[in-house]
Amino acid sequence: MSETTETLESRLSRIHEALEADDFVIIEEVLADLEPAEIALLLESLPLNERARLWERVPHDVDGEVLLHVRDEVRTTLINDMEPHEIVAATAGLDTTDLAELFEDLPKQVAEDMLRSMDELQRTRLQETLAFEEDSAGRLMRTDTVSVRADVTLETVQRFLRWKSQVPDNTYLLMVVDRNGVFMGVLPLSRLVSQDPELAVADVMNTDVDSIPVTMHSRELATLFETHDLSTAPVVDEQGLLLGRIVIDDIVDVIREDSDQALMNLAGLDEEEDLFAPVISSAKRRAVWLGINLITAFLAAWVIGRFEDALEKIVALAVLMPIVASMGGIAGSQTLTLAIRGMALGQISRTNSNWLLRKEFGIAIINGILWALVVAVVAYLWFGDSRIGAIIAAALVINIVAAGIAGILIPLLLKRMGIDPALSGSVVLTTVTDVVGFMAFLGLATIFLL
Amino acid sequence: MSETTETLESRLSRIHEALEADDFVIIEEVLADLEPAEIALLLESLPLNERARLWERVPHDVDGEVLLHVRDEVRTTLINDMEPHEIVAATAGLDTTDLAELFEDLPKQVAEDMLRSMDELQRTRLQETLAFEEDSAGRLMRTDTVSVRADVTLETVQRFLRWKSQVPDNTYLLMVVDRNGVFMGVLPLSRLVSQDPELAVADVMNTDVDSIPVTMHSRELATLFETHDLSTAPVVDEQGLLLGRIVIDDIVDVIREDSDQALMNLAGLDEEEDLFAPVISSAKRRAVWLGINLITAFLAAWVIGRFEDALEKIVALAVLMPIVASMGGIAGSQTLTLAIRGMALGQISRTNSNWLLRKEFGIAIINGILWALVVAVVAYLWFGDSRIGAIIAAALVINIVAAGIAGILIPLLLKRMGIDPALSGSVVLTTVTDVVGFMAFLGLATIFLL
Repeated sequence: MSETTETLESRLSRIHEALEADDFVIIEEVLADLEPAEIALLLESLPLNERARLWERVPHDVDGEVLLHVRDEVRTTLINDMEPHEIVAATAGLDTTDLAELFEDLPKQVAEDMLRSMDELQRTRLQETLAFEEDSAGRLMRTDTVSVRADVTLETVQRFLRWKSQVPDNTYLLMVVDRNGVFMGVLPLSRLVSQDPELAVADVMNTDVDSIPVTMHSRELATLFETHDLSTAPVVDEQGLLLGRIVIDDIVDVIREDSDQALMNLAGLDEEEDLFAPVISSAKRRAVWLGINLITAFLAAWVIGRFEDALEKIVALAVLMPIVASMGGIAGSQTLTLAIRGMALGQISRTNSNWLLRKEFGIAIINGILWALVVAVVAYLWFGDSRIGAIIAAALVINIVAAGIAGILIPLLLKRMGIDPALSGSVVLTTVTDVVGFMAFLGLATIFLL
Repeated sequence: MSETTETLESRLSRIHEALEADDFVIIEEVLADLEPAEIALLLESLPLNERARLWERVPHDVDGEVLLHVRDEVRTTLINDMEPHEIVAATAGLDTTDLAELFEDLPKQVAEDMLRSMDELQRTRLQETLAFEEDSAGRLMRTDTVSVRADVTLETVQRFLRWKSQVPDNTYLLMVVDRNGVFMGVLPLSRLVSQDPELAVADVMNTDVDSIPVTMHSRELATLFETHDLSTAPVVDEQGLLLGRIVIDDIVDVIREDSDQALMNLAGLDEEEDLFAPVISSAKRRAVWLGINLITAFLAAWVIGRFEDALEKIVALAVLMPIVASMGGIAGSQTLTLAIRGMALGQISRTNSNWLLRKEFGIAIINGILWALVVAVVAYLWFGDSRIGAIIAAALVINIVAAGIAGILIPLLLKRMGIDPALSGSVVLTTVTDVVGFMAFLGLATIFLL
């Protein structure tokens, strides 16, 4: 029985020190204690040089598992450090599902070598798995299901399992199929071991089970596992034929990657990005996002440029105008985040979006007026001109209300256009709050102060 | 065998229409098909009025489960619609862990009624569970473990389970304890059913298992379940005595809530917020965040105000200055998001932060220079003054580099001060990029153009 595990942070500094001191004893000691997924986290936390040196020390029998657990970009850095025959060896122990996940990241030559090293059955299976779309149940499913017939007794099932002797540790239930292999229900092991052995499987099995079509998207699968508290689900084809099973371990990874993606996309980042990617390639990717935002910034500048007259005459306008834009941006991003989360959970649709719009409008009116008053008073005290106070107050209310409405409408529109609102919602929103903010403030000033 | 489930969105519109038409047949039809967690999602997606009307129709035997699955704020709206005796009835079927989760949200009178309606044993158990800290393993664990002794045969275990007859469906493994109840290992049901019944539990059990101290934080637990692909983990006290088990179903909820929190906190929102909270209470909560950001905006305005001279003489400065601030903000938030994610995964610590800082510095230099050139050319073409182009280019490089450094240092500093970087990182960062941006641009202009 192992003790509670050390934190990643403390392992990281131990490994770091050991790498600097070339102390391979400590490195191997730390590695021996770790699951492949933990080694993956550790490798991801190291700069390229140190990563390569640690990777050399990882025991070869877990190489394949570790490759599975690292982010796509990190995987490429690791594979680049391996000889073709090492890669083939590392992946030899993996099952088809895992192999398919790695396969498309392999250099072409290695992929061919690997195919050649497989037997006919393995090759066919891999090709079948690769034929399913990425992120579909077909790609996620495992084929190590244990299935039994409904008309036999629990006693017979037990004898069958003992004869089989090897049952995967993460088998929590058996699949019940008819003579044609059509899925009928599941027999939880907890029932098999606690019910009368004379009973037939049909008497004990659970038929109220969601069978997963092989094309179902992993995100939908995750929701199903979460809301139904599933541990395993059967995957079937169009005829209801049992093809395999989805296990909760794999769904946990889907859930984590999914939320990771939402967070990273909001900042225009790719969730597969290597924390220690080379400067040049990171810079390239991020440059695109900065470029898109620069267009927004120029648009805002152009709007300001329309009001050069007002700015030349009243310098207070230049001083105060960022306040209007910035408050709109903050208010809008609150509404946008709420909407993006709600849409990801499937909780926002045309049915309730009107109601939501009214609610956000109400909040914007209240907060707009509240902070407009505060800003008006400060502006008046600062510049001694009550008209400037009145104008910034009006502009602030207009911009915060526009932000609230845009925060709901933009993601709905983007989604209808088939664009991920988490990725592009914030740029579009900023454009709206900048343009409306500067235009309202400087426009009102031009009308009333010049 | 039920067919693949309808999406939440289509159910939502069916329920919505049915509520409008007062068609209770359809409502009950939809509800009958749903798991408590799905009813919870549905209730959360409805405005308060409709939510109350649907809640009345939810079958009473799942009331308690539904209450467990909704967000804290939504729970309050539902509980407010119930009579005290209804609440007590709804929670009667729940186990201690679930009861403890609800307990602190109940009106005081109801909580007392509930305690009075319990028997001595239930009351003691509830009080013991409540004594553990929130988000600790003690609060999450279930006490429905099935434990066996190491020295008996698998055959005996089977007889014991058949005599017991009721084993929870989500029992994937049995706990092995010694005569004093000290945890020794686990016996996966998959081994129990496939190994020779003559073998002793000790020969078949898995002793390489992490036992969870009752004080472990749920976030740490989630990482452990993820990296070790666990389905169930034993919870022990300081003496190693088995207290209960943590099941993957509950961990999935922890993972989802955790990532939800990161996303919402970045926008200054509470992840427990009701999508349809009353306007007044939502406005109140969000006002705080706007107020904090207003301070930042005023600080930026104050910086601009120091350069009134320059702004009065060269109006182009007012037109171009938001570009400098905004590009810094975007670049900084990319670095900040990467750092926050890395810190949440435990992948960033003092060990590698220097390396990361150098990397982000390099990216900032490259992207700073790249976009500075673009902006310089546009500014020159726009205002026909090459000095303005040169100055904005210099300011842009300075601000993007400052943003990159701040994006790493701010979250590290906040964390060391015990402040959640996801919550306050973005405000602090914006302050830096606004102040540095305006100061660099207007300051350089004052020096070289006036």
